[in-house]
Parts: sequence; C-alpha cells; structure tokens
Amino acid sequence: MDTTEFRRRGKEMVDLIAGYLENIEQRTVYPNVEPGYLRSLIPEEAPEEPDTYEDVVKDIERVIMPGVTHWHSPYFYAYFPTANSFPAMLADMLSGAIGCIGFSWAASPACTELETVMMDWLGKMLKLPEDFIAGTHGQGGGVIQGTASEATLVALLAARCRAVRMILASDPQRPETGITSKLVAYSSDQAHCSVERAGMIAEVRMKKIPTDQSDKYAVQGETLRRMIHEDKAAGLIPFYFCATLGTTPSCAFDHITELGPICNAEKIWMHIDAAYAGSSFICPEFRPLLNGIEFADSFNFNPHKWLLVNFDCSTMWVKKRSDLIGAFKMDPLYLKHDHQESGMITDYRHWQIPLGRRFRSLKMWFVFRMYGLKGLQDYIRKHVELAKEFESLVRADQRFEISADVVLGLVCFRLKGSNEVNETLLKRINNGRKIHLVPCLLSGQFVLRFALCARTTESRHIREAWRLITQLADEVMQELPH
Amino acid sequence: MDTTEFRRRGKEMVDLIAGYLENIEQRTVYPNVEPGYLRSLIPEEAPEEPDTYEDVVKDIERVIMPGVTHWHSPYFYAYFPTANSFPAMLADMLSGAIGCIGFSWAASPACTELETVMMDWLGKMLKLPEDFIAGTHGQGGGVIQGTASEATLVALLAARCRAVRMILASDPQRPETGITSKLVAYSSDQAHCSVERAGMIAEVRMKKIPTDQSDKYAVQGETLRRMIHEDKAAGLIPFYFCATLGTTPSCAFDHITELGPICNAEKIWMHIDAAYAGSSFICPEFRPLLNGIEFADSFNFNPHKWLLVNFDCSTMWVKKRSDLIGAFKMDPLYLKHDHQESGMITDYRHWQIPLGRRFRSLKMWFVFRMYGLKGLQDYIRKHVELAKEFESLVRADQRFEISADVVLGLVCFRLKGSNEVNETLLKRINNGRKIHLVPCLLSGQFVLRFALCARTTESRHIREAWRLITQLADEVMQELPH
Repeated sequence: MDTTEFRRRGKEMVDLIAGYLENIEQRTVYPNVEPGYLRSLIPEEAPEEPDTYEDVVKDIERVIMPGVTHWHSPYFYAYFPTANSFPAMLADMLSGAIGCIGFSWAASPACTELETVMMDWLGKMLKLPEDFIAGTHGQGGGVIQGTASEATLVALLAARCRAVRMILASDPQRPETGITSKLVAYSSDQAHCSVERAGMIAEVRMKKIPTDQSDKYAVQGETLRRMIHEDKAAGLIPFYFCATLGTTPSCAFDHITELGPICNAEKIWMHIDAAYAGSSFICPEFRPLLNGIEFADSFNFNPHKWLLVNFDCSTMWVKKRSDLIGAFKMDPLYLKHDHQESGMITDYRHWQIPLGRRFRSLKMWFVFRMYGLKGLQDYIRKHVELAKEFESLVRADQRFEISADVVLGLVCFRLKGSNEVNETLLKRINNGRKIHLVPCLLSGQFVLRFALCARTTESRHIREAWRLITQLADEVMQELPH
Repeated sequence: MDTTEFRRRGKEMVDLIAGYLENIEQRTVYPNVEPGYLRSLIPEEAPEEPDTYEDVVKDIERVIMPGVTHWHSPYFYAYFPTANSFPAMLADMLSGAIGCIGFSWAASPACTELETVMMDWLGKMLKLPEDFIAGTHGQGGGVIQGTASEATLVALLAARCRAVRMILASDPQRPETGITSKLVAYSSDQAHCSVERAGMIAEVRMKKIPTDQSDKYAVQGETLRRMIHEDKAAGLIPFYFCATLGTTPSCAFDHITELGPICNAEKIWMHIDAAYAGSSFICPEFRPLLNGIEFADSFNFNPHKWLLVNFDCSTMWVKKRSDLIGAFKMDPLYLKHDHQESGMITDYRHWQIPLGRRFRSLKMWFVFRMYGLKGLQDYIRKHVELAKEFESLVRADQRFEISADVVLGLVCFRLKGSNEVNETLLKRINNGRKIHLVPCLLSGQFVLRFALCARTTESRHIREAWRLITQLADEVMQELPH
C-alpha cells in the first residue's frame, strides 16, 4: 500500500469508524458467540500473497464485529468506562504516523517534553500540590503509564527500594538479603486485584485492611494504625500503603486525610490509586474527595477511563522523581545522549517497566484543547447526574435497594433478597444482551454494578435500561417459590 | 466534535500524515532543540474554553515537529527500527474506535480470539515447534506484550514461581522465605539492559555471562555450564537463562543449540529474547538462527521493530501457558464470566503485568494480509541487502573496520584508531543532523552502529549516508595531531 492508496483507504476508514460509532446503539452490546468462534472463520495460516483490502474490510463485519463487546454503546454499563473521543482518535492517528519511541529525551524530545507539560496541565486541573508539578525546577512530576496496575507496581518497587536504602542507612552492618522478607505493604480489602498482584511480583507481604458496610467500604485511620502497631511488634517493617479513591466494587473512598499523616509519621510510602474516580477531581465539587493528597508520595488515575483520552493513558505523579528513578536506572551506551547530565531533562524509561513508549501525550493535548476544562467538567457532571437519575429509579422501586453511596457514576444495587435471585437477575440481563452489567460482592452480598460508561449515554438509555431490569426482575420474582 | 466534524477532520488528518510520511526526507532527522524548548511554546495551563481545531493543527508544525526525532526518515540509522506501515495504521484507527479493553475473554471475545489466532499465524510463519502453537487443544500459545522488557520480566516471574514450587515440592519442610535469595538467573553481558532490570524488579540475582570478540559476543554452552557448576557448588539455585538472538550492541546470537540442552537438564527456564532479529526468522535463509528454539520455555520478539506492525506489539510464546498464568492469576468477582471454567478460552490478563489491553492483534491481521508472507520476507531481505551494501562501502575504505559480523540489518563499524576519534566522528555526524546513529561498546571499543530502520530506505540513502560519514571522517582525521 503506497501513500496514494493510504489517502484513499484512510478516508474510507474514517467513514467506517464514524459510522460504527454513529450506529453503535443498533448493535448487540454483549456478543452472542461461543469460545472459539473466530478460529473457524479465518484461514489457519497467513496468506503467502497479499489479500485485497476489500476482503480485509469485509471481514471486519464478518469476523470481528460478531465477537465485539461494544464498550462505547450507550447500553454498556459494565466494569468502568473506557474513554473514547474524536480528538483522542485524531491525535492517535498522528502519534502512529510519527511513530517515535520516547524512551529518552533524545529519542524524541517533543514526545518527552509534551508529556511533562501535559502532566503539569492535568495536575493543575486537579489542583495537585505544587510538589507534584514538574515545572522547570520541580523535584516531582508526572509520567504516563500504560495502566493503573503498572503505576501501582512502579510505586511499590520504588517504595521497596527506598525502604531498603533507609534501613541500610540506619544500620549499615545489616545484610541486604532478608530485608524484603520483613517488609509489609497494605491496601484495602476493596482494592483492585492488581494491588495484590503487585505484591506477588515484588515478593513482598501485602496485607488487606478489612472494611465493611459500617465504614462504607473505606479504610479508616484507626484500622491502619492498629495493623502497623501489631506488625511492628512482630518484627515486620511497614513500608507501603496503597490507598484507593473510588474502589472498583463500589467506588468507596479511603480516608486519606486520616491515613496520610500516619503513613508520613511511619515513613510509609503512600500511593493513591484513583483509577476511575480521579477524572472527577477536575470539578471543584468533587475535588474535596482528593483532600489528603498532600500526604501522598505518588498518585495515579486513568484519563483513559473517564477523561476522554483513549486507552492507554494512565497518569502518575510523584513528589520526588529521584525515588522512582532510583529503582530502575540503567544506562547502557546505546541509550546515552549529550544532554543526559544536564538535570533539566527527563528520560522516561527510568520511570516505568517497559523501555519503549508511544507518543501518548498528543492524545491529552488534543483532548484538553478541543474540550477545554469546562467541556471536560460538563462531561463528568453529566455522567454523575445520570447515575443519580438511575439511583432514584432504583430507590422508587420497593423491591430494590441501593448497596453503597452513589458518589460518582456508579450505582450498586440489588433486589432485596438472596444472592441467588440477584445472580439469576444478572444472568437474565446479560443473556438478553440489550444491556451489559457486571456484579460485585459487598459484605458477602451479590450486588449489581451499573456504571455510566459511554460518552453518548443519555437519560433515555438509562430509563430504557431500568425498564428492562424491572421487567426481568418481574419474571425472576414470579418464578420464585412462594 | 461530533461525528460529522470527525469525518472531515479525520480525512484531513489522513492527508496530513500521508504528507508527513511522503516528505519526511526533507526534514532534519535529529532535532536541533535544547532541553525545555517546548514549555515556552504553549500556555502554562489547559484552556477553560475549547481551542479551535485549526489552532491545534497549526501547532503540530509550530510546537511538535521541531522536537521530533524522525524515526521513519530514510536517514535514521539509530537504535533499531520501529515499525510503521499503512495497514498497521489503518488497523490502529479501527482499534481506537472499537476501543475495547480485552482483559478477559468476555470483555471482548474478538479481541482475545484474534490475538490467539494471529499468534498462531505468526508462530507458523516462524516455524515454531508445535508446543508453542495454541491451536484448539495446545498447552502453549502466544500473547502480545507491550515491549520485550515486559516479556523478559513476565518470563522471569513465571520462572521464579515455577522454581519456588519445584523446590517446595521436593522439600515440603523448607520455609518459602529465603528461597528467592538463593536463586540465580543468567544472561549474556551483551543482553539488553532490561534483562538486568527484570532481575532488580524480581529481586533475584542476575549474573552476566562474559562474552568477547573471540566468540563473536555470543554466549557459549561451556561458559554457562561452568557458571552453573560454580553457583551450585556455592549453594545457589540456577533457575533462569535469558538467551539473546540478535543483541542490541552488535546483533550477536547466543548458541542456543548448546545452551538449550544444558538449561533443560538443569531445569532452568530458558527465555529467548530476539526482540530485533526475530522478524527475520520468517525467511527460510535466516530461520537456522532460531535452531534450538525447541529447548526454550518462552520466546519473544518485536514485530513492532522489524515486521511492519506499529508499536506496541511484542509477541511472546510459551510452551506451557499454565506456567505463566500460575504466576499472576487473580479472579475477583467483577472479572468473572460464564465461560471462565471451560478451558477453551483465554483470559489474557493472567499473561501480563497490566490488566487492561488494546485490540492490538488487528494490526497484525491487517499487516499479514496486506503484505502476505512474501511481502514481509521481501521487506526483511531488502534491509539485509542494504546492510550488506553499506558493509561493503565500509570495507572498501581502508581507514575503517567492521567490528562485528553483519548478519541482518545492523552494521557495526569504526575508524581504525582511538575511541576518542570515533566519538568525535559520531558527534560530528549527529550534530550535522542529516543522518542519525548511536554508538555501542564492544570489547572496550567505541563503535558506531548503522541500523537499517525506515521502511523507505533505499540504496541512494545508504550511499549518501556513507558519503557524509567519509567526508566527516576526512575532517576528523585532518584535525588529528600528527
């Protein structure tokens, strides 16, 4: 394919994806295929000679679409949102064409510098403390990671490295081996599974701090203080706490204003994972949820969830970039460059697990400029309003109950009754394939999660979803043994 | 921006990027900017109200392009190639629009299944042993990772997990803590820096196996055998060897036909990192370089380097997927789905560090179909031929020497003489900004690396580059004190 053909095919593809998104409502949101469906639809091997482009395009509808879960359908209410906006897609096209790999400043200065400045822009939108802003002389700053899982892991590795150094500094005779086995990290029992996984990868003990309905599934200062006390008494060394703002099951918020001072006093690295909720902090009315950020060492959220920047774009800030870099720095000759020692510049490969990296800040730049702060705030507010609307629909039906406070765009609800009946209801909903939801477990109760996801969801979709849910609830209730 | 405007802006963007790639030769390949150049060109904060799209587009030339290192310019010979092709860009546009997150089969069956089948297609192109092919009943199979660094780390973590289990199985009374501190991993002293980094992350001892000019910078079986012997005698437990096929400094190939049987006998996990060279194995004449793959537990290379699939697409195969999954599996309720227990399906989140993942296999599908196997082979062969052409230009000039065998698309060369004179030459070359190269260190010698990178590089670019290099060499030599 030469440039002339690309001009033609590219424009056709623009029309194809515009059409896909325009008419996505008409598609079955949750695909009706059996595992292994795709293999039989295509050859067993790659072709020797090129296929025609027409055949490839035909196969999008024949092979791909039947098996797509349409995350951008206004009938998709599962998991959490994943962002999708036109400005982000345009920027991604440009990023693909430039196709630079930004592992060092020299490998593409624009790629590195736009990222630093966009992280500052976003940090200012969130009113992050000055410590997290790179500016021209800051000690901190931001980096785009691929996912929140990576950010959690990177923070944990930096914390492990810092802890070992501090211990060795205070006791130079102590052998380095064996220290890690004494370290203990903490997170909420509501934290994302990737936090536990980070502990497995780093081979450190990761303790779950219990929460329950009485504390709204949030970690309280007192509980953390008690666990630290017990662990220290047992000879362990607390070194990392991953707080969650907006947990995956119920969008609960750990009390970081209480937790932060405890961590600071104990020299425990506090990482804040606000993967979903973080985007809302650009609105003044939701910003108080981030109070306590001043105590954190690192903070992360996913604009690729709820801030209209297509996946992947997980933004992470640290107060001291030297803490992060120290855990990873490697400098072979083929990656050295002239400006390296100047201190003014950033080699982002020291901030992350992978070496290579795409030009992802272009997506942020396009989205922030094409929406403006106000446009982004409007978007967040609309989702929260729709969630509130759904909440009132649920509350108006005596058969249902709300299972957790509705703070942002997630409504946790269930039929009053057994877990079985709720499981049956959810199965009916998803088998109907008109809307798609996933469950969670809260205090042993099977709960349905209704997450506002698509950019194009409107009140009518919410009301239609609710009509469907109540219809299916009628059926399920009628079938119950009396 | 609504769909109507996206149709218009998307088509303009197609023209913009087509024009960028068409005329990339005219741009300065290596940017002439000072660190911090970008910050002063744009506002300090995101706008409150939207900017116009025209302003955003204007800023691409004003703000971004002056700081871009043009990796796809035919005058770019630094690092290793990063892929860029029109079919991959078209597929990526589609992937962005579908915008699904494929962490589980249910989260988007097409995303998971196309990946499994594309990994089989590619595995067959490489003539991988049957063990690595998923098929419908295989125990192994492939996964797309973001980068080779991640693949190395994932393999190391899986190996660590397997080793600890084997040790505990053979000695159930042994305490689990402390085992890791006895483990020892190996790689070549020519291995990529990310291998050492993986060891730091996993907190295992990583030993570098010495190589030198006499063995063409490749690890020999005998050296590994001796190190294993010594380490076992010292009470350590060898568990992982990362072999490199095509090292970053000089594209050297470890002797895996010797190394593999040693690893197998010692129950050491052998991971093969062929990040750059792997793409060439689709050509029968280069496939012998992969002989010995049958001894490996895992294998990885980057189609996003040299197989025309835009970043990121790092393909990794394992013989036993259960080894990989075992190191990571986490199953919270919100990620469970009906088909989970069937065994027929794959939840790729258990195969990798991040949880989320893009629909990256679309890029492979488009590229394999639009080029066909023959087209891809032609592309590889053309780069190798150009490298050979450059090699003969170097060999024809008595002042220069070739520093390592030219096997694929990389030529390592230097002026006969001191490191200083070669450093000066490279500095002149890069400051000229007409071509871009990076150095490496081989046996203490400062060497220039000339890597064939851009898809559009032709013989005339090579010859022009050589003309420039010899001109600058003239200057440098003349300035030498007599």
